[in-house]
Amino acid sequence: MDVQMVPDPLKEPEDLQRLQPKVDVEKELGYVFKAITLTRHKIDGKVPLIGFTGAPWTLMSYMIEGGGSNTHSKAKRWLYRHPQASHMLLKMLTDVIVEYLLGQVAAGAQALQVFESHAGILGPVEFNEFSLPYLRDIARRVKEKLKETAKDIPMIVFAKDAHYGLEDLSQSHYEVVGLDWTVDPRAARERTGGKVSLQGNMDPCALYAPKEHISEIVKKMLEGFGTRGYIANLGHGLYPDMDPENVGAFVEAVHTHSKQINKRM
Amino acid sequence: MDVQMVPDPLKEPEDLQRLQPKVDVEKELGYVFKAITLTRHKIDGKVPLIGFTGAPWTLMSYMIEGGGSNTHSKAKRWLYRHPQASHMLLKMLTDVIVEYLLGQVAAGAQALQVFESHAGILGPVEFNEFSLPYLRDIARRVKEKLKETAKDIPMIVFAKDAHYGLEDLSQSHYEVVGLDWTVDPRAARERTGGKVSLQGNMDPCALYAPKEHISEIVKKMLEGFGTRGYIANLGHGLYPDMDPENVGAFVEAVHTHSKQINKRM
Repeated sequence: MDVQMVPDPLKEPEDLQRLQPKVDVEKELGYVFKAITLTRHKIDGKVPLIGFTGAPWTLMSYMIEGGGSNTHSKAKRWLYRHPQASHMLLKMLTDVIVEYLLGQVAAGAQALQVFESHAGILGPVEFNEFSLPYLRDIARRVKEKLKETAKDIPMIVFAKDAHYGLEDLSQSHYEVVGLDWTVDPRAARERTGGKVSLQGNMDPCALYAPKEHISEIVKKMLEGFGTRGYIANLGHGLYPDMDPENVGAFVEAVHTHSKQINKRM
Repeated sequence: MDVQMVPDPLKEPEDLQRLQPKVDVEKELGYVFKAITLTRHKIDGKVPLIGFTGAPWTLMSYMIEGGGSNTHSKAKRWLYRHPQASHMLLKMLTDVIVEYLLGQVAAGAQALQVFESHAGILGPVEFNEFSLPYLRDIARRVKEKLKETAKDIPMIVFAKDAHYGLEDLSQSHYEVVGLDWTVDPRAARERTGGKVSLQGNMDPCALYAPKEHISEIVKKMLEGFGTRGYIANLGHGLYPDMDPENVGAFVEAVHTHSKQINKRM
């Protein structure tokens, strides 16, 4: 789907005919692959490079809403009123996403994250029908293809606000499940039963707190998750008015407290 | 807080001094009480009349954001940066809310619902500190006062997206816990253990579906909740483009399926 379509969003199932039936991912998105290769060279092995993509339902909702939305009610109307056309669109998006992620790996990405940013607007029934199967399909197909090249690329799934789907997400071919800040760390460990690594989940707004408070919040978070099978992270993105110094305090607190916890073990 | 303040939202704790320290609820909100009495007379005993209010954290976030917000990051910044001033404001709001609800009952409201519409933007720790204690305080104080008048007024708490707080909410002096559509009905029953009645929770967007599909969704919902200690409802409000006929189909489906379920018992 070309970026110029944004002001002309999908309205009815007939509009699917406006989409390219067969996408040349290299031609349309090759600039991303070039950027990845360039970045990989510049970081010179100092940190790993994570590739990423939006998940099918999240992309579908942007394509129908034509932008952000509080309710996503136009996109959800499709799910309820045009389930078949919805599945057709989700399938088309999945095909492109699989190629897109494989292209990122070929270009140098060393891990992959799939963002289902709009999962929380779905209920458990709609998530199980319109999101989860495609998330699973993406991981299965990417891994199958990567086997041929003998590359071992860990995959992370982040379905924001999909608290109801935690158990299912932990059994979806992803090595890591990312969590937003509404999930208690210990509860997340119990519910996923050691099946996956967990990533997250400090409330980004905690970066507004004084540094000592950030340190306390990080300590609690690490004690809840433990330091094994765990990637310390925020539970969502930063806001523009956040102080980079406090992001530094977050990283420092992660290092300090994880070392202390590891010593005790 | 006067409605003219909306374009001049609270920015820093000093701004709390702009607020009236002692609010004459009858004077400021008497028009609501008059509307309730008028409505109660007009409906002539045909249906009960539910009074309602926003909860303290939700009102606080409007007072700081000056309107709606996706992230509520300005209001959350207060919680992390000015916890004491936040508690002061939440306490002031709680005092007014208690009087406001009592005034609604005196005017003729037969049940009361408290909406913590912005609960889901909080994590469990912040909810437990800045929302739950005030929700509990409201119910406790309203009920204590109503005891003197020997009135038996059921109270409903609806904390949208507070999936993490379901157990606590079911033990918060409210007779009914309202649920949004991201909570599975059976899971909600298990987690609240029969301690309260439940209200909810069909996805409002399901009203976009054809009537037969609405009927199936309602059937599943009723089978999940059971018909005892239950108030059938949507999981949130309607959107302007929804067809009133489909709202009718929802109500009809609730009647049809609950009768069938009761027959089987």
